[in-house]
Amino acid sequence: MRLLQSYVQDRWYTAPNEGVPLLDATTGELVAAVSSEGLDFAAALEHARSVGGPALRALTFHERAGVLKALGQAILEKKDDLYALSTRTGATRSDSWIDIEGGAGVLMSYASKGRRELPNGTVFLDGDPEPLDRKGAFSGQHLYVPLRGAAVHINAFNFPCWGMLEKLAPALLAGVPAIVKPASQTAYLTEAAFRLIVESDVLPAGAVQLVCGSVGDLFDHLTGQDCVGFTGSARTARQLRAHESVVANSVRFTAEADSLNCSVLGPTSGPGTPEFDLYLDEVVKEMTMKAGQKCTAIRRALVPAPLVDAALDGLRDRLAAVTVGNPASAEVQMGPLASTAQRDEVRDAVELLSGATKVVYGGELLSLVDADAAKGAFFGPTLLLSTDADRSEVHEVEAFGPVSTVVPYDSIDDAVGLAARGGGSLVASVFSADPDAVRELTLGLASHHGRILVVDETSAPSSTGHGSPLPNLVHGGPGRAGGGEELGGIRGVLHYMQRTAVQGSPDALTAITGRFVAGAERRTGEPHPFRRTFDELSVGDTLVTGSRSISLDDIERFADLSGDHFYAHMDEEAAKKSPIFKGRVAHGYFVLSAAAGLFVWPDPGPVLANYGLEHLRFVQPVYPGDELHVVLTCKEKSPRHGAGYGEVSWDTQVINQNDEVVAAYDVLTMVATTDAANG
Amino acid sequence: MRLLQSYVQDRWYTAPNEGVPLLDATTGELVAAVSSEGLDFAAALEHARSVGGPALRALTFHERAGVLKALGQAILEKKDDLYALSTRTGATRSDSWIDIEGGAGVLMSYASKGRRELPNGTVFLDGDPEPLDRKGAFSGQHLYVPLRGAAVHINAFNFPCWGMLEKLAPALLAGVPAIVKPASQTAYLTEAAFRLIVESDVLPAGAVQLVCGSVGDLFDHLTGQDCVGFTGSARTARQLRAHESVVANSVRFTAEADSLNCSVLGPTSGPGTPEFDLYLDEVVKEMTMKAGQKCTAIRRALVPAPLVDAALDGLRDRLAAVTVGNPASAEVQMGPLASTAQRDEVRDAVELLSGATKVVYGGELLSLVDADAAKGAFFGPTLLLSTDADRSEVHEVEAFGPVSTVVPYDSIDDAVGLAARGGGSLVASVFSADPDAVRELTLGLASHHGRILVVDETSAPSSTGHGSPLPNLVHGGPGRAGGGEELGGIRGVLHYMQRTAVQGSPDALTAITGRFVAGAERRTGEPHPFRRTFDELSVGDTLVTGSRSISLDDIERFADLSGDHFYAHMDEEAAKKSPIFKGRVAHGYFVLSAAAGLFVWPDPGPVLANYGLEHLRFVQPVYPGDELHVVLTCKEKSPRHGAGYGEVSWDTQVINQNDEVVAAYDVLTMVATTDAANG
Repeated sequence: MRLLQSYVQDRWYTAPNEGVPLLDATTGELVAAVSSEGLDFAAALEHARSVGGPALRALTFHERAGVLKALGQAILEKKDDLYALSTRTGATRSDSWIDIEGGAGVLMSYASKGRRELPNGTVFLDGDPEPLDRKGAFSGQHLYVPLRGAAVHINAFNFPCWGMLEKLAPALLAGVPAIVKPASQTAYLTEAAFRLIVESDVLPAGAVQLVCGSVGDLFDHLTGQDCVGFTGSARTARQLRAHESVVANSVRFTAEADSLNCSVLGPTSGPGTPEFDLYLDEVVKEMTMKAGQKCTAIRRALVPAPLVDAALDGLRDRLAAVTVGNPASAEVQMGPLASTAQRDEVRDAVELLSGATKVVYGGELLSLVDADAAKGAFFGPTLLLSTDADRSEVHEVEAFGPVSTVVPYDSIDDAVGLAARGGGSLVASVFSADPDAVRELTLGLASHHGRILVVDETSAPSSTGHGSPLPNLVHGGPGRAGGGEELGGIRGVLHYMQRTAVQGSPDALTAITGRFVAGAERRTGEPHPFRRTFDELSVGDTLVTGSRSISLDDIERFADLSGDHFYAHMDEEAAKKSPIFKGRVAHGYFVLSAAAGLFVWPDPGPVLANYGLEHLRFVQPVYPGDELHVVLTCKEKSPRHGAGYGEVSWDTQVINQNDEVVAAYDVLTMVATTDAANG
Repeated sequence: MRLLQSYVQDRWYTAPNEGVPLLDATTGELVAAVSSEGLDFAAALEHARSVGGPALRALTFHERAGVLKALGQAILEKKDDLYALSTRTGATRSDSWIDIEGGAGVLMSYASKGRRELPNGTVFLDGDPEPLDRKGAFSGQHLYVPLRGAAVHINAFNFPCWGMLEKLAPALLAGVPAIVKPASQTAYLTEAAFRLIVESDVLPAGAVQLVCGSVGDLFDHLTGQDCVGFTGSARTARQLRAHESVVANSVRFTAEADSLNCSVLGPTSGPGTPEFDLYLDEVVKEMTMKAGQKCTAIRRALVPAPLVDAALDGLRDRLAAVTVGNPASAEVQMGPLASTAQRDEVRDAVELLSGATKVVYGGELLSLVDADAAKGAFFGPTLLLSTDADRSEVHEVEAFGPVSTVVPYDSIDDAVGLAARGGGSLVASVFSADPDAVRELTLGLASHHGRILVVDETSAPSSTGHGSPLPNLVHGGPGRAGGGEELGGIRGVLHYMQRTAVQGSPDALTAITGRFVAGAERRTGEPHPFRRTFDELSVGDTLVTGSRSISLDDIERFADLSGDHFYAHMDEEAAKKSPIFKGRVAHGYFVLSAAAGLFVWPDPGPVLANYGLEHLRFVQPVYPGDELHVVLTCKEKSPRHGAGYGEVSWDTQVINQNDEVVAAYDVLTMVATTDAANG
């Protein structure tokens, strides 16, 4: 018997005892055993904090993104080994695809988002500066830095790979080391995937550790800089959340608990509409994928009362076509549950539900392909019909397997109310092409859900499905669902960081953030900033241009060239009648153009292109005779590793003869590095 | 004796018993008594959920902002009554100013932010759509809706007005009704301020309730849609956070606990620098304002070891000048603590600290102005010097009164490490004009603090001070400080809302959010959209313009008119050598100008002005001979109540003869309402 190893303080560790045996879900054969006896959990936490944290924090967001990409590739290269092990958990090939390739996909997605949406630095700025006085001498800026503790990840048994990777990706991108504790039942697959991570050798020492077996006294050693991400049952979430150390140190505790998610068939989506069939397909898919062992599965199918009979007919037909059996067999669509203990829990839950439902399909298993019901943890797809939706069972008792209940509803308000009786869920879905119904249902459901999928004929071919959390969308829900949030793109990264409001002078904020804050020193002097390479430029470098006057003739010529003959530019009488202008004004686009004429350095140089503008506001009208100049200041530099250039934004103010700003915006440019400019 | 009333289910309630007596902090005279006996807390919560919530949710963010403004005005109109009562809590006039006018200021600030930063609708969109497929048929959008429960606010005794209002403002703006439970000791002032709110009659029924006295069994009735905001001791925070209902329902629990905040004198800010004096002034201000009873007060003054003697001298001089006594007296700078029980707690804490500190000033009270030390809760300003900073007392024992400890440090790393030993604090401050020290200290301190104030000579005149949370900056801190966040502008509003990821077709997302999502139906047809009033326009209304070609002559003329002779526009050979262009290209600003020429309706009409652009990207170069047209679609409408116009943004794409987008941006316009256009 193979005893799974833990990986702590950068060493593989084998417990000195026999461990708890883990059985193949289909055959009941022994796969491995698991134990964490003898591990020093306090030392593991301290190793993360003192070795892994500093090493990760020394990398920029872009460098960490590069690490994630390499990890994803390392897993994909050896995925076949993982698929073989995954079958033993009861997963079919397509179940495993979600777990293994879906998990690697989360790493890739975060790698890409990290490069696109985070700076190539170590501090993330949250929003724009907040002016705190009228003079501009005192401002605030919110920023995020990594927590200086460890991220403890307690994962569920159903997705041994994805569950680890969807938590690791945002933590590592944030710069926070992690300790991964998989659920024992399927820990052999997590251990194998983790081994690929260690062998890839792309992570710094201390960045990740693995605990196979119990977490021992780990929670006793948590501090206010550590955080916990938990996925599993609502009951366990409760225990861990109330742990003395968690409470005493305000440890950030994120829980994703299985919940009584619902899917709503729209009021007018009857038989014959595409959404009717899409709905029935989705309910059956969610019941049978991963044998219904998903915290996001559809537990309650909310169907307009007049459509219930038709829906039941369609669901029965589809369920009858589902092949159950050995997940290694290509023809099998649904495998066993993860263990016989899980199967017994599902049986008990169906029994509990029997007071408020009747079985309309399944309940007993009919036939298995290439498997022995006496040895494997099989439970057939089972469809219930709610007979009394006022009772609580249907909304509160979860059968964590291939079990759903059809619940009739009368009106949109009724559907929203029934959904809410779940006490907070991870996800709901709505099948309808009626914009009003879609809006009412979605906004009605939103307060009780972390994610809502709306399906109609146009989105169905692209839909990722009710049960699939996506790296770019929030995963988590209020109340019973745990009250947490994971993923959601960069939002998920920020959960591992501390948001801090910094207040001070513009110079102090510029020094701290590396972004020019209005009011800070503007440094002028030769050469023209557009003649400096990316490396030579500093935030605060400023050009104050000469001035030009704007004549009525300029306006006429601009109108002629652009074709823009808006009356405010062309017709003195009409312009005077406008509530905004006192007479003919220059085109805003002409003001921009003239500004560029003032600030551009015409000859070839490091500035390769002006690729965009942000936050442009025309603050004051420009009248014929006005005299304009530009103040252009290097606001922010974003290096692009290996690209030969970096992105530079320029705080740009166009100012008139009365020292009034008439237009303000950020000019976005690509500026060559010294190497590229000389090469 | 006056028994304070509670306000529950829109009625004033007087408990049937005598209640707990509340004494004047200075004279020991009876002020009032407090009891909540007999209140039905479950009914109060249900009233908030079923009456207050729906009424608030029926208002738009701008309407709720209007309510906040009216509440602020109502309080300011009767502020004199509040000042009189405030004196009885021990507050001097300037202490009361922070509490009363500062509290009203939070309402005003949120009113203003609500109008400027939130839509005039009921749903807040979080970020831009996330594309979820390559075809553009399936996208995601995060949005926020109000929680459908009650906000329970448990407030501290030190700021009876501000404490209530800083929590009410974001909750009400979010659309969530609140139940306010002030600390008993000073509840008479909260009750008086709350009475002004009720009498102002600007809030809908059920929006606010007040519990004077204990919260009874209120916590037992919390659900996952309710949330708790707590301010007070770390010990009480712990108890409430671990309450069974909070844990079982993942109730959002925000705590602001008093913490061992520090202020750091910069390594080079010695005597003779402005920052040295500013630092000493601030430490003394924080020790004596509100008699040091602020969760944000400076408990640890971190001073470079070589500067300790000079700092102690300066602090002693300043402390000796502080007048202590009856807060009603104009010459008094520091009043008593809130109660003799508080005073005894402070005495005990100073005793606990004595093992690791020595008293360098105070410890005993010398003389009082117009007050009797035997009757009032007086405790003199007391300065300690840490004699062993390795011991935990200095970093963990809080004397919640006019007590601070000077802690010597050796290096910036040492200062950061000492600060972190507080286990997480609400605020730190840094007094330095050295940009490197400021950056290192601030980024080193950030992980352990919710707010960091940096003071130098330039910001000092505008600085709001170490101890003052501001409505536009986050208030809260990790670990011991409670792990929560309040305020921070709109961030604080979102704590009362559920963030939900919605996925679906662009048409579904447009229907749900009211904002045009790329890929949704673009409706073309007469009249030109610029001829429609704000009321007549619908999101999705689209103009597809005719096309124009761009000639080399156009480029020459544009260069001549704008003055922009950048080589990529003017010099074929040089342009060809650029890594980006294949030859001379049109100016981006000319592309914008020509686009306006294509889409503008020239005659006077409802579109009053184009006041800005957002998210402009030049996606493809435009070469001579290219043929451009524009697709312009109404993207979002923001009504402005009573302004005669609304803001309309237009999704704008400039497209070439190969159907490639060459530029994409949002055009921002002001569009007259039908009434204004006809009037």
